[in-house]
This record gives sequence, C-alpha cells and structure tokens, in this order.
Amino acid sequence: MVVSYDGSAYSGWQRQSSHQSIQGTIEKRLSKLINETVQINGAGRTDAGVHSLSGQTASFEIEANISAEQLKYALNRALPDSIYIETVAEMPEIFHARYHAIGKTYEYLINQDVKPSPIRHNYCHYVAERLDIEAIEQAIPHFKGTHDFAGFMASGSSVENTIRNIYEFELLKEGGDLRFRISGDGFLYNMIRIIVGLLIQIGRGKIPPNEVTKIILSKDRNRAKWTAPANGLYLKKVHYPLNYDVILNGIRQS
Amino acid sequence: MVVSYDGSAYSGWQRQSSHQSIQGTIEKRLSKLINETVQINGAGRTDAGVHSLSGQTASFEIEANISAEQLKYALNRALPDSIYIETVAEMPEIFHARYHAIGKTYEYLINQDVKPSPIRHNYCHYVAERLDIEAIEQAIPHFKGTHDFAGFMASGSSVENTIRNIYEFELLKEGGDLRFRISGDGFLYNMIRIIVGLLIQIGRGKIPPNEVTKIILSKDRNRAKWTAPANGLYLKKVHYPLNYDVILNGIRQS
Repeated sequence: MVVSYDGSAYSGWQRQSSHQSIQGTIEKRLSKLINETVQINGAGRTDAGVHSLSGQTASFEIEANISAEQLKYALNRALPDSIYIETVAEMPEIFHARYHAIGKTYEYLINQDVKPSPIRHNYCHYVAERLDIEAIEQAIPHFKGTHDFAGFMASGSSVENTIRNIYEFELLKEGGDLRFRISGDGFLYNMIRIIVGLLIQIGRGKIPPNEVTKIILSKDRNRAKWTAPANGLYLKKVHYPLNYDVILNGIRQS
Repeated sequence: MVVSYDGSAYSGWQRQSSHQSIQGTIEKRLSKLINETVQINGAGRTDAGVHSLSGQTASFEIEANISAEQLKYALNRALPDSIYIETVAEMPEIFHARYHAIGKTYEYLINQDVKPSPIRHNYCHYVAERLDIEAIEQAIPHFKGTHDFAGFMASGSSVENTIRNIYEFELLKEGGDLRFRISGDGFLYNMIRIIVGLLIQIGRGKIPPNEVTKIILSKDRNRAKWTAPANGLYLKKVHYPLNYDVILNGIRQS
C-alpha cells in the first residue's frame, strides 16, 4: 500500500505501545476489518510531525479473500481523515516495502511570507528572516553525488555505512514558499532535516555556500548541527525496481 | 486586536474552564506578559474547528505602559504557532469588539478533488460526490437580502430577533475548491454552516435551487436540517463603522 498522512497528529510512523502512531493506527483498523492480526512493514520510519503525500509504502500479508480495490475502499472508510490509503496492490509474495526500496524522494517546505499563517503551522517551516536564495542555490549542487554523510546523522543512530548517493536535489520557488526536492538511494536518520538546517544557515549568510564540501568531508556533526523542524518534511515517493514501481507508483513523477 | 487562528487545535473561541480555548489561551499569555489580569472580548464566538484568518477581533483594557506594536510582537512570541495576532491597535476607550461590530465576512471551503488530502482534513470540507455548481449558483441569490433566518439557527440558541441581512454572497471556483464568501450584518448560531449544508443538498440534486425562498419563509429547521462541518469555515473579517474600521482593518478588502 501507498499511504498519505498528516504526521502532526501522530507520534510518527512506527508502532508504539503508548502513543498513537500511523503504523499502529493502520494495523488496528486493517486487522479489525478482515478479522486477522496484520503487521505492516513501512519503507521508512517517519518522525512525529513528518508527513507523507503518496510517499510511505508498506507491505503486509493477509489471508482474507478480498480484492485490493475493496480493501482500499473499506480501509479508507475505517481510517481517520488524517490518513489516506492511495494505493493497495497485490504484489509478488517476495516483495518487502523496506528491503526492496532503492530510493526515496522527500520534499522540505519553508515559508518566507511576511507573517506566519497559523493554519499552515503544521505544514511548513516558517522562517521570518529573508534567506539569500542565491547562496542556497549555490550550495545545493555540493550535496549531490555520493558522499559519506556521517556528519549529517542524528546521534543515537547505529547505522554503520553512512555513504549515500543524492541523485536529485532542487529548489522550487513558489510564491513565498521554498520547496526543496531531494532524491537519494537512502537517507540517514534526520539527514534531510540536517541538510536543510545547514542550508538555512547558508541562506542567513552565516556559512558560505562553498563550505558545504568541506563540511561533508569533515564528517563532523558539530559543523552541521542545525536540524530543521519536522513539520516541513514530506515523504513524496519510495522508489522500487521497475517491476514493482509500475504497480505501486504507476506513471507518477518522482 | 485582530487575530488569526487554526481552530482545529481548540475547543472554540470562548473561554472554558476544562478545555483549551483561543480566548483563554490569549488571555493567559497576555495576562502573564504584562502581569495584569486581562479579559478580552471577541466579536463572535467561533466553534471548535472554525478558523479565523485576519477575522476575529477582540477588545481589551490594560493598565500597562506598552505600545501596540510592542504588545503585538511580545504576544506573538508568547503564543503558540496556532494563533497569530495580526494587529494590535489603541482604540477609543468606548470601543467594544462585539457591540460595535456591524457585520462579518465568512468563507466556507469545500474541496472536490478526486481524493481527499489528509493534510487538508482540518482546513476544508471534502465532498467526494460531484456537486452541480450551476444549481448552487442559482440558489445563492435567494439568500441575499433581509430575511427571517429562524429556520437556519441551531437549536439551543436563545436569540429572539432572527432577521438578518446577507449583503454579499458569492462562490469562487479555485481548482478543486469551492469557496463561498458571505457577508452579513450578523449570523445566527450555525447559520452559515446550515446555509452551506443546504447548498450541498442542492448541489447533490436533492433540492431544487428555486426552493430556497420557500425554505427560508417556512422558518422550519427541518427543511434546512443539514449542517456543514466546522473545519471548512473561516471568519475573514469583522466590519466596524468607518472610524474604527480604518484602524483595525486598514484598506483590506472585504
């Protein structure tokens, strides 16, 4: 299944005993619907406040004799309005949403309007200070390609291989909004929020854009110590090998 | 003060002992800020889930020696992101936000996209069924003018005079959104949500548009028994006599 959700209403994707999670909410409604205990495996664990728009993908196995379309319809009726199942598709039995993911696309939304909008406070990161867009645009290409992003990982993560390939990174300017679109083969814990945190500092003139490569090479979290808040982050697509991708994502762009 | 807020985070405007209200939240922060007990009087009581965008206006008296600009700045720093103070202005002592209001403008937002967006679930009313826009547009003019709207008032309200003048009512089509903009000298409890509820039935072909006048004249709540949900409703402006209006709302449209 491909899932959209408003992350501001939840403690994050991952099931937790004491908090409302997205995974837990879907599992509960799905299990009740078909009267089986179902576990779903998400492609990634989004944090509290992080949204998905046709992004998060989860695999699961059921016994029930129900079509994918029927399941999508019934599940959307059962779920709260903060979660919407975009796609349910029958996959080859071997398919696993996490293990088969070959990349992800995220977007990060910054708003630069003269004043913050209270009805968008959960859906973008408001930066009152005027950012130097040219400096940010000069910095972005330095992130592209294959690098060791060890300095762009939140502490507490136990990942050993910190080399990642960012193969797309662009900034779209839409009125008062700055929309960063970033695609890579994978992202370390908080990696995008740390990258955007650094770009904000560059936009504030605190760090020159051509420092990015040095900061990456330093592998020093202290040199990229800012983490942009979760509310601006959207998981937009999980990429799969073509045979799976056409089923899950169809002809959808990035 | 003119206030914007995300109503989905609150039990409504009005102070309540056991729930988070917008009035209560502002009073608490304001009182703490200037170290005085301050009560604020809003122009109207918006329900839980109803938003304000530069709409709600509230008057209050303080002793503190602080400029309007300073107060606005300090208050916005103290308030949560779901509330934003748009304007603070020093008014003639006689001014009262409710008693001097001569009209209000509301907007109601319906979304008709092919599928609902979970990140907009608190900010528009999603109607999956395709509405007959022409029928709705034929119905709208029948609401304009001065009528006894007794049948368009939620039960429990004790208002005696149910005659109101709607002097502006238009429908703006913006992509998949239908935006109803309605201005009047005042509105009964739930009146706009009941009007929109009826318009949705008309858009569904359940009621012909030329029935509106008969339904109004019947003064029968059973003939206008649908109430559109709160999440689509926005208070957009409180109108005051010109001398007050220029101070509070400047040259802002409607």
